[in-house]
Amino acid sequence: MIPIWADICKNALAQDVGRGDITTNTLVAAGQKAEAEMVAREDFVVCGLPVMVEVFRLVDPRIRMLPDIPDGDGVRSGNRICTITGPARGILTGERVALNFFQNLSAVASATRQFVEKIEGTNARIVDTRKTTPGLRQLQKYAVRVGGGYNHRMGLDDGVLIKENHITLAGGISQALKLMDDSASHLHRIEIEVETLEQVREAIDAGAQAILLDNMDLPTLEKAVAIAGGKAVLEASGNVTLDNVYEIAQTGVDLISVGAITHSAGSRDVSLLITT
Amino acid sequence: MIPIWADICKNALAQDVGRGDITTNTLVAAGQKAEAEMVAREDFVVCGLPVMVEVFRLVDPRIRMLPDIPDGDGVRSGNRICTITGPARGILTGERVALNFFQNLSAVASATRQFVEKIEGTNARIVDTRKTTPGLRQLQKYAVRVGGGYNHRMGLDDGVLIKENHITLAGGISQALKLMDDSASHLHRIEIEVETLEQVREAIDAGAQAILLDNMDLPTLEKAVAIAGGKAVLEASGNVTLDNVYEIAQTGVDLISVGAITHSAGSRDVSLLITT
Amino acid sequence: MIPIWADICKNALAQDVGRGDITTNTLVAAGQKAEAEMVAREDFVVCGLPVMVEVFRLVDPRIRMLPDIPDGDGVRSGNRICTITGPARGILTGERVALNFFQNLSAVASATRQFVEKIEGTNARIVDTRKTTPGLRQLQKYAVRVGGGYNHRMGLDDGVLIKENHITLAGGISQALKLMDDSASHLHRIEIEVETLEQVREAIDAGAQAILLDNMDLPTLEKAVAIAGGKAVLEASGNVTLDNVYEIAQTGVDLISVGAITHSAGSRDVSLLITT
Amino acid sequence: MIPIWADICKNALAQDVGRGDITTNTLVAAGQKAEAEMVAREDFVVCGLPVMVEVFRLVDPRIRMLPDIPDGDGVRSGNRICTITGPARGILTGERVALNFFQNLSAVASATRQFVEKIEGTNARIVDTRKTTPGLRQLQKYAVRVGGGYNHRMGLDDGVLIKENHITLAGGISQALKLMDDSASHLHRIEIEVETLEQVREAIDAGAQAILLDNMDLPTLEKAVAIAGGKAVLEASGNVTLDNVYEIAQTGVDLISVGAITHSAGSRDVSLLITT
Amino acid sequence: MIPIWADICKNALAQDVGRGDITTNTLVAAGQKAEAEMVAREDFVVCGLPVMVEVFRLVDPRIRMLPDIPDGDGVRSGNRICTITGPARGILTGERVALNFFQNLSAVASATRQFVEKIEGTNARIVDTRKTTPGLRQLQKYAVRVGGGYNHRMGLDDGVLIKENHITLAGGISQALKLMDDSASHLHRIEIEVETLEQVREAIDAGAQAILLDNMDLPTLEKAVAIAGGKAVLEASGNVTLDNVYEIAQTGVDLISVGAITHSAGSRDVSLLITT
Amino acid sequence: MIPIWADICKNALAQDVGRGDITTNTLVAAGQKAEAEMVAREDFVVCGLPVMVEVFRLVDPRIRMLPDIPDGDGVRSGNRICTITGPARGILTGERVALNFFQNLSAVASATRQFVEKIEGTNARIVDTRKTTPGLRQLQKYAVRVGGGYNHRMGLDDGVLIKENHITLAGGISQALKLMDDSASHLHRIEIEVETLEQVREAIDAGAQAILLDNMDLPTLEKAVAIAGGKAVLEASGNVTLDNVYEIAQTGVDLISVGAITHSAGSRDVSLLITT
Repeated sequence: MIPIWADICKNALAQDVGRGDITTNTLVAAGQKAEAEMVAREDFVVCGLPVMVEVFRLVDPRIRMLPDIPDGDGVRSGNRICTITGPARGILTGERVALNFFQNLSAVASATRQFVEKIEGTNARIVDTRKTTPGLRQLQKYAVRVGGGYNHRMGLDDGVLIKENHITLAGGISQALKLMDDSASHLHRIEIEVETLEQVREAIDAGAQAILLDNMDLPTLEKAVAIAGGKAVLEASGNVTLDNVYEIAQTGVDLISVGAITHSAGSRDVSLLITT
Repeated sequence: MIPIWADICKNALAQDVGRGDITTNTLVAAGQKAEAEMVAREDFVVCGLPVMVEVFRLVDPRIRMLPDIPDGDGVRSGNRICTITGPARGILTGERVALNFFQNLSAVASATRQFVEKIEGTNARIVDTRKTTPGLRQLQKYAVRVGGGYNHRMGLDDGVLIKENHITLAGGISQALKLMDDSASHLHRIEIEVETLEQVREAIDAGAQAILLDNMDLPTLEKAVAIAGGKAVLEASGNVTLDNVYEIAQTGVDLISVGAITHSAGSRDVSLLITT
Repeated sequence: MIPIWADICKNALAQDVGRGDITTNTLVAAGQKAEAEMVAREDFVVCGLPVMVEVFRLVDPRIRMLPDIPDGDGVRSGNRICTITGPARGILTGERVALNFFQNLSAVASATRQFVEKIEGTNARIVDTRKTTPGLRQLQKYAVRVGGGYNHRMGLDDGVLIKENHITLAGGISQALKLMDDSASHLHRIEIEVETLEQVREAIDAGAQAILLDNMDLPTLEKAVAIAGGKAVLEASGNVTLDNVYEIAQTGVDLISVGAITHSAGSRDVSLLITT
Repeated sequence: MIPIWADICKNALAQDVGRGDITTNTLVAAGQKAEAEMVAREDFVVCGLPVMVEVFRLVDPRIRMLPDIPDGDGVRSGNRICTITGPARGILTGERVALNFFQNLSAVASATRQFVEKIEGTNARIVDTRKTTPGLRQLQKYAVRVGGGYNHRMGLDDGVLIKENHITLAGGISQALKLMDDSASHLHRIEIEVETLEQVREAIDAGAQAILLDNMDLPTLEKAVAIAGGKAVLEASGNVTLDNVYEIAQTGVDLISVGAITHSAGSRDVSLLITT
Repeated sequence: MIPIWADICKNALAQDVGRGDITTNTLVAAGQKAEAEMVAREDFVVCGLPVMVEVFRLVDPRIRMLPDIPDGDGVRSGNRICTITGPARGILTGERVALNFFQNLSAVASATRQFVEKIEGTNARIVDTRKTTPGLRQLQKYAVRVGGGYNHRMGLDDGVLIKENHITLAGGISQALKLMDDSASHLHRIEIEVETLEQVREAIDAGAQAILLDNMDLPTLEKAVAIAGGKAVLEASGNVTLDNVYEIAQTGVDLISVGAITHSAGSRDVSLLITT
Repeated sequence: MIPIWADICKNALAQDVGRGDITTNTLVAAGQKAEAEMVAREDFVVCGLPVMVEVFRLVDPRIRMLPDIPDGDGVRSGNRICTITGPARGILTGERVALNFFQNLSAVASATRQFVEKIEGTNARIVDTRKTTPGLRQLQKYAVRVGGGYNHRMGLDDGVLIKENHITLAGGISQALKLMDDSASHLHRIEIEVETLEQVREAIDAGAQAILLDNMDLPTLEKAVAIAGGKAVLEASGNVTLDNVYEIAQTGVDLISVGAITHSAGSRDVSLLITT
């Protein structure tokens, strides 16, 4: 299937390669072949190998990339992750863009995995947010799944989430929920963001099917769970860290959303060296 | 001037908005106006306001954004950064994408500024790398400049940097430099990456005009500076942190390149609230 | 807001105008102004005026179109629908494409309105399908809403509908529903297509949240409604006509989907004449 | 040859598939193979098989489609039209878009064929108009040829047709023809639209090479044929139906243009079922 | 009207400006205004001013260009052609691309004008060919008209020209003309390329409506004119120069096509200087 | 490697082929195969064969083109340059665009070669300018290299050249050089355009690394070389012809730039004939 993110790869390559890799085209003969290997320089969860394949394919369809392990597996520093063989020019020209994708996606998957492991044994799920790097939405959401997390909305058009600003403009929680209920697709559940227990009650009474509990402390989350009484899916959000995520999960919420797993995951360290 | 990154904004919006913001379009009337303000929730260097302007312009050209301060200035937590007025629908629909850009670019500028401030009083400059987020090359390089850093190459086509893999394939430092010298544009200086002092000597002897000193410790950097004797621009690279950057600068190198200011800058915290 | 369908207008114009309107460019002077009016030549529900505006704007931004009535209102044969003023060349060049859009969208809105009026007084809603004209998905779904209908999924990515072929491949209704339930977004309700009352029972027991009743006759629909007992949204589909839609609505189903309102709506008749 | 309509297929797929087929991707394993067959559910002229091939190729190049008959042949309800084999996910994801194209194009070809058969034995030809579905111009014109009709202009740039509004703006039939004659390509014949026999005479006298007879009744058409006396190609247009097309053809006109074969052809019924 | 060649301007700018004009952006302040004038440095026919306007508009919509004379007029060396005012950065950044267009199009118009003037007083017309610079087809054909020439086909789809290779593959002149006649649009005249007088006769007998006389000397052209006897439009082609064009015109052919006016027109000399 | 100029080929084809080659599609059967050969009709340096391959590949991937010689070699009139085999339709449809590219690029390479040969034995290099045909920048710069010349800047973003207008706006040569020096990349050398010997001195004193000597006569060039004394790369520019280029080279300048090798190269003559 033609990946929906193929254009992202093409654009990133265009930004980097521009009119051509003048260093490589001068120093490396057109027919020269090479083999390279990518090695982990720290421990992390691998993610983004299919994206690397696409990047190298765009640079030169004759390049072959052989992964040693699949997306989702962990590597330790020093492990080889994949080998790449083919025209040397293409390998060198595509290297940086391929790594830029891989290192960020592996960082997202690794950050997600850390949160997921912390709440093992509870009923909660880690979900992502729309706080993704501009242009990398689909790829980073994929990395979240690879890391064991679940996706929240992909965008503004495939799910309904009534946020604080919407409530203000619509004239209150009940009004907003009623308006939404009248027109929403029968295939969508309506989620609403609240900040107080009063609002939880109002949302439940107005028939909210999911509630985002914004920035509540642990005792408040527990009370929210009690108030909801299973009538709505509950999502805890705001200031979630590896230190408090387990306690948040134990309050009984269904979902815990973490923006940092996408917007601040950073980059995992690898090296790519020509071996022959 | 039509910004070169306008398409990046359009793509990021397309990824987020898709077929339309179903929540906002249901809850907010088409004619409704609103005013919002964006407030800093931590201290940082502001960067990306023109990108936000472009994002909102693409969503609805009637939206007006009034910055309180320009890109490059610092804010403290609680400071208002800008106000946004216009059709309420457009403000809500464009908000997340606009913030995703702004928060990342401000993080890049802030990270750069920290390094720049550490080496004040030395002759060295902080430069970036090609380790940028895929798709955001031009924008993050702009943020580096806003933070007080300098740009290394924009891509593979506007500067020559002979790296370890090139040297391997070209058959050695002298050979690579000779080949490059024969064909390089008279407008380009040639830089080469080395790892040992022997290689520094070989590069200088072969007429290298700039040398990237990869992962050298402080004493080695000092010796490299002595060997080069002003005959080439020297760039220190690898394992640069806020803790060691001042000492690296004091070795006498001209440039210190830091990948982390772009690939691991993360995101700076702000809030955007409807005020009327 | 930049309409998501602007590219559709641009492509349709490119197909028609190609390298330029040789007749108009020869016979009409560049500076010549004209006024035209579009008049209904049969009775129908108006839909697509904003699309016409966009088409003429693309041809020449100086063209002004003044609607006499808004989308969604009915016209009778002979009524003027809008006037168009501006450069004569642009009006003649854009005319056919503008009308092609308008005539099809008005036909879709009119067909929808006929079904909607037939079931007035019942609790059912008319919904559309994905059987739309290739390229016109968003526009025809808009016309359905203008006609008083509701939209089913916009595409394969914003709602879950398990169809006959999915059930076959997944190994049965219960298995399919279980698999889906484990991974579906908390913002989505799951709909499943069934053909027999047994299957209705199985779907309800497996927790289906919506059920598409495919090609059932009236007595079977009634029994399905009884079996579901309000535990799932019910959608009747298949062989729905203006003759039987009221009786289908009276069975108690929630939704009645009709492919013909988009794929076979045809075209409503209008004329556009230069008046000065 | 890369089909000119490949982008139409890609756009239609993008509209339907968006960020991915969430139902199929959850319920059908990535490696699962399937075989499906498309069967006619009414009698019609087949058209659009190469477009279906392109749609499935875009979804997954490993899908193979084997037509049982070629475009242009008739099928009866119950006949198998083609089999489709390959990755099950791709078949399900591409199905609806492929069918939407096929069902419309078959309807266009079938409608055309009906008109063509009605005038068999006469010297007239059925031609189409520019009243095509926006975006589907080339494809529907292809379907007209498949149905046995002929194409009028493909667009405004490959043929000259002086219409009523042009005559008004140019100051009359003779003036318009003279202006056009002075600048038209030597490869083009000039056609002009007229509504009365006086205008036919004026057009013939001014050297018109083709005349569109707009909305004339049968006796008037006959007189127009007599007046023209073979000096111009004659095209009858307006209110042509299956009931009157034979009589129109018998008046001696060369061409009969029918907008309805493209703008109101609707959709022919088929089913596509997984067989293994 | 949005010019069909706007994308050509955008692409040419993208090729030249790339990631930004580093010289100008460093040396010229963002707010600085300037006025420049373009002056002819040889005598020629002006063509391409609207293209320059578009180029500068794309670079910065605030730039205003004031032509002193319109496309089609002649200038003498030293004449001012236009003034350009606005942001200095944009003027400098857009200059080269704007001039590259203008200088080529003026050269095409000037070359055409020379041929046109040579045959004044005869009945022949100068026409262009499809031997245009790749990407500049529409613009160079416009320049030919500006120079007083006429356009042959714009492309392969808006006119029929049966060339030597077609005749070979179709099995002869008569066969080719018959096949074409059966399927050609009633709006098209059929032209065929011939090399001998025998072929002229065969073409005339087979009903050719236009004949391209390839590389015939003057006496042969005269005989071809006699043979055709006014039954077909005659086009002389091949080895046409300013020296022989008048004699060719006097043979009585209708059209004389010259590839060199587009493929070898070169560039007319101008200078653009900042005046304030 | 996907060529950066693939889109140029696609656009040129789109301009020529439009909705399809009506002559070829009528006269040549879909399955017919053909073999053609391209033969030189004058002496020149071959350039553009890979571009022809790409054009034919875009038209029909089954077409095979077999070059008899590589880009850069010379041919004499009558020599076969390549053979082309495959579907006859594709060969005929792609022919003109393929030739248009090849003939221009061969002309650029040939013009360059003439200048290069004239200065053999001197130390100077022939370089191109940014006076290229709009849209063909990369291709014509490639042809210059094929002809033995060197490339100046590819665009405004990969090299620094301070021109007369920049100096005016920046307030003088020294100011401009200082400003540029403060911000230029360490990988770039700064070139400045001068017109007098005074300016040469000022530029050298201000540390210019390269100097463009605009329109200087031979004695002045010699003095400029003496003044520079090897401290800067010197480029002679303006009014360079085949007659004076050798004398210019003998003045001791390093580079001689010639706009005419790209903007006025014209077209080299070839024929392409179906052989079977």
